Amino acid sequence: MAEVVSATRLDASETSPADLDRVLAAADAAADKWAMTPHVARARSLAAVADILDEHADELIDMAARESHLPVARLTGELTRTTFQLRFLGSHVADEKHLRPAIDPADPSWPMGAPRPDLRRTHIPIGVVLNFAASNFPFAFSVAGGDTAAALAAGCPVVVKCHPGHPELSARVAELTTRALRESGAPDGVFATITGVDAGDTALRDPRVRAASFTGSVPGGRALFDIANSRPDPIPFFGELGSINPVFVTAAADTARGADIAKEFIASFTMGVGQFCTSPGLLVVPENSATLAALRDAELPAPAPMLTERIRDGYERAAAALREHRGVDPVAASAAGSGLEAASQILATTVAEALGDPDTLLDECFGPSSVVVTYRDATERDTLARTLPGQLTATVQGENSDIGPELASLTATLARHAGRVLWNQWPTGVSVTDAQNHGGPYPASTSVHWTSVGTAAIDRFLRPIAYQNFPAELLPAELRAGTPGNLDTPHNPDSLDNVAPGA
Amino acid sequence: MAEVVSATRLDASETSPADLDRVLAAADAAADKWAMTPHVARARSLAAVADILDEHADELIDMAARESHLPVARLTGELTRTTFQLRFLGSHVADEKHLRPAIDPADPSWPMGAPRPDLRRTHIPIGVVLNFAASNFPFAFSVAGGDTAAALAAGCPVVVKCHPGHPELSARVAELTTRALRESGAPDGVFATITGVDAGDTALRDPRVRAASFTGSVPGGRALFDIANSRPDPIPFFGELGSINPVFVTAAADTARGADIAKEFIASFTMGVGQFCTSPGLLVVPENSATLAALRDAELPAPAPMLTERIRDGYERAAAALREHRGVDPVAASAAGSGLEAASQILATTVAEALGDPDTLLDECFGPSSVVVTYRDATERDTLARTLPGQLTATVQGENSDIGPELASLTATLARHAGRVLWNQWPTGVSVTDAQNHGGPYPASTSVHWTSVGTAAIDRFLRPIAYQNFPAELLPAELRAGTPGNLDTPHNPDSLDNVAPGA
Repeated sequence: MAEVVSATRLDASETSPADLDRVLAAADAAADKWAMTPHVARARSLAAVADILDEHADELIDMAARESHLPVARLTGELTRTTFQLRFLGSHVADEKHLRPAIDPADPSWPMGAPRPDLRRTHIPIGVVLNFAASNFPFAFSVAGGDTAAALAAGCPVVVKCHPGHPELSARVAELTTRALRESGAPDGVFATITGVDAGDTALRDPRVRAASFTGSVPGGRALFDIANSRPDPIPFFGELGSINPVFVTAAADTARGADIAKEFIASFTMGVGQFCTSPGLLVVPENSATLAALRDAELPAPAPMLTERIRDGYERAAAALREHRGVDPVAASAAGSGLEAASQILATTVAEALGDPDTLLDECFGPSSVVVTYRDATERDTLARTLPGQLTATVQGENSDIGPELASLTATLARHAGRVLWNQWPTGVSVTDAQNHGGPYPASTSVHWTSVGTAAIDRFLRPIAYQNFPAELLPAELRAGTPGNLDTPHNPDSLDNVAPGA
Repeated sequence: MAEVVSATRLDASETSPADLDRVLAAADAAADKWAMTPHVARARSLAAVADILDEHADELIDMAARESHLPVARLTGELTRTTFQLRFLGSHVADEKHLRPAIDPADPSWPMGAPRPDLRRTHIPIGVVLNFAASNFPFAFSVAGGDTAAALAAGCPVVVKCHPGHPELSARVAELTTRALRESGAPDGVFATITGVDAGDTALRDPRVRAASFTGSVPGGRALFDIANSRPDPIPFFGELGSINPVFVTAAADTARGADIAKEFIASFTMGVGQFCTSPGLLVVPENSATLAALRDAELPAPAPMLTERIRDGYERAAAALREHRGVDPVAASAAGSGLEAASQILATTVAEALGDPDTLLDECFGPSSVVVTYRDATERDTLARTLPGQLTATVQGENSDIGPELASLTATLARHAGRVLWNQWPTGVSVTDAQNHGGPYPASTSVHWTSVGTAAIDRFLRPIAYQNFPAELLPAELRAGTPGNLDTPHNPDSLDNVAPGA
């Protein structure tokens, strides 16, 4: 998502340097204890957090609605997703699916030219994680959201830098989370929140912090990414930044169901007042499109309040820049809003125009605005696809009759540019599952290898470690199967024969 | 390894900007073709490279010995390892072990609060890989070495920036590799070499390059890491930089077999004239150590030539700085060398002294020099372990009688600071296996999540992609199992019900 990160302080009170140091010292001190806490106990603690949030659902949703201006129904669903996520990620580690052990017993005749020693690889927690909370999902991507759940599940202490958009909710969720963790036996210091831009920046530079995660705008995320990489000891930074989530409509689909596509498209890009990372900001349709014709006749939803004044201001600027751009025509618009409310708009242009100024016309506009781009033929359509920067999602609306080499080429192109590709569904649903991938090439994500949603999100906060020739007693349990008799032969200089493979 | 990267040009001829552009254009054009080449065909091409190198072994080893000054026996073993590696990584992808598919069928009652769509995740090649070759393994970490094998196996075109330390060998290996790839049916452009610092830097900034790998010094690797991260679109940079590979000797092991440990230690740290990334530069022993006593009586190997003048000069400077450091005493030294030859040395200091100037005394000295550090008690020993920067390896020499909570605490600490931990073996052997992990926290590696040796090294050059609601015909083969009847229901707006989980 592309909210502009604030440089001013919205927080009532910011974490002082002394308090930040205490938080980081406590997190650092908790790292070993939490890493060594049995996986089932970790899962119980995550479930305890889920339980306490569910118990306080009414209070929390009320608070969230007041601070975020999002509707109660949406927030109710989001809290359900959030507590499901805590339990689901916990059960993944309770089942030890995250460890991915690999065991290579010693092999004197290994064909590499030197004996293979006993090698066993598993994954261990990366250490203290700093999580920058997002504004647009006050539950699911905030204090006890996906990154927090993933890091805790991985066995890492978490420090959350709260988003100033919902300070009261953040404090209350933090209070409940802390209580649930403590009462379920998690070590002190395993979870804390901090507030303020300075505290977040300072924490990101602190040697005790070993990884960071972020969901937000491209400029804000890039600034933090640069800090993480400029440290004397750079750390992994998992930033989910911007995406316009293009939807490609084939000529056949446009003809067969243009009116349906138009209706569904409007529902998708205006969902949550367009404040979803996966909101489709680009609809690619053929010339003389039935979909576009239906959009011209459509009524857009009534204006609804955005998350913050800053986000509304940013939206209005970006929406106006698109609207007033040369070669861009209006298609539909809602009534004007007042206060925090955002008016929705649909605009139209051509592939040629879009490619003439991709930095404006193919850039994310965070809010309920979308651009319809018309293509003359499949070649022009596929040129546009190849030009797109990295995306969280890319969608094809097609028909059975489209399936063939030409469409396969388009979907392959989209797969290379996105983290998730969809067929005949809409991107604004990010299900929490094992197979989910919420990421993609930059700027969708700063780290194309990882997802921030689903159980694979846990892997970001683990790293591999190999044990060579270790006695069973000193190995993690998952690596003990069939250990050789190290105890009978503690002195084993065989590796000195292993000259060739040194590095 | 910590050879200082050269800023001057040793290359006979450097790749011109026009030639570099042609190389990158060809690699980019080959990316789709190579990605779509069947896995078994990719494996055949890797095996063809292995075969042609083996066929020319005598010629290549002769050339390598002349340029690198390494002994023929060592180079023979290294070439065996290199061709094994090409075949082994190829067979891994031929067996499709790298794809790691995950399939979540649609589930209308998914407890997240919204129906789960059909989601299927697999891994696709990341795109063109730029590989900076190393000097110290003219076969295994150079033109057709591990990074090249891993990237080609993953389905990525590779551009190798040759190391100036062995230009003739690099050109000949490149020629043979290109021939084998072409004759085995790989697309043109899938492999190329470039020479010169400028060409490497320019390539690293080029948008067509999607990932880079490097084995070399901390300053050189960090400079390239910074370039990769400063791009408008940052790319993953897999750098293997410095490590002192500490070896901790328990009091019991010191008493039981100090003389053996001393002998093995000398063999390990002088192997390859100390020019291994995993060379043990730090031996940690108890006060009044039998190991140290044995080292004082030991004879070090005769001086042997280093790889290049630059490396020898860097070694002599670093070795002298250690030798002349306050609180550091000489233990043993070989005769002085002449020309490219390096004299070996063993020095001794205490934990207190080492912690007083870790930047010098606990820093890598690339070459046959090692520091013995004496500890007063287990507490002091473990304090040193906790203070170490990231390491490729950390080793314990212990006895059965040591095994207990105190030793478990030490090995857990070492696991947190290293990519591989060893028990009663020596780090200077990096076996190519599935369970290997050659990496570690910075500065051992710039990316703690990955290994540069073993089949898991392939994963660096793959990234996840999720397919949602896709018809079987458009899915990669590994994701087709049990696909729902998408073809009967191409129009499926269910994801719009999926409001809560949007992001």
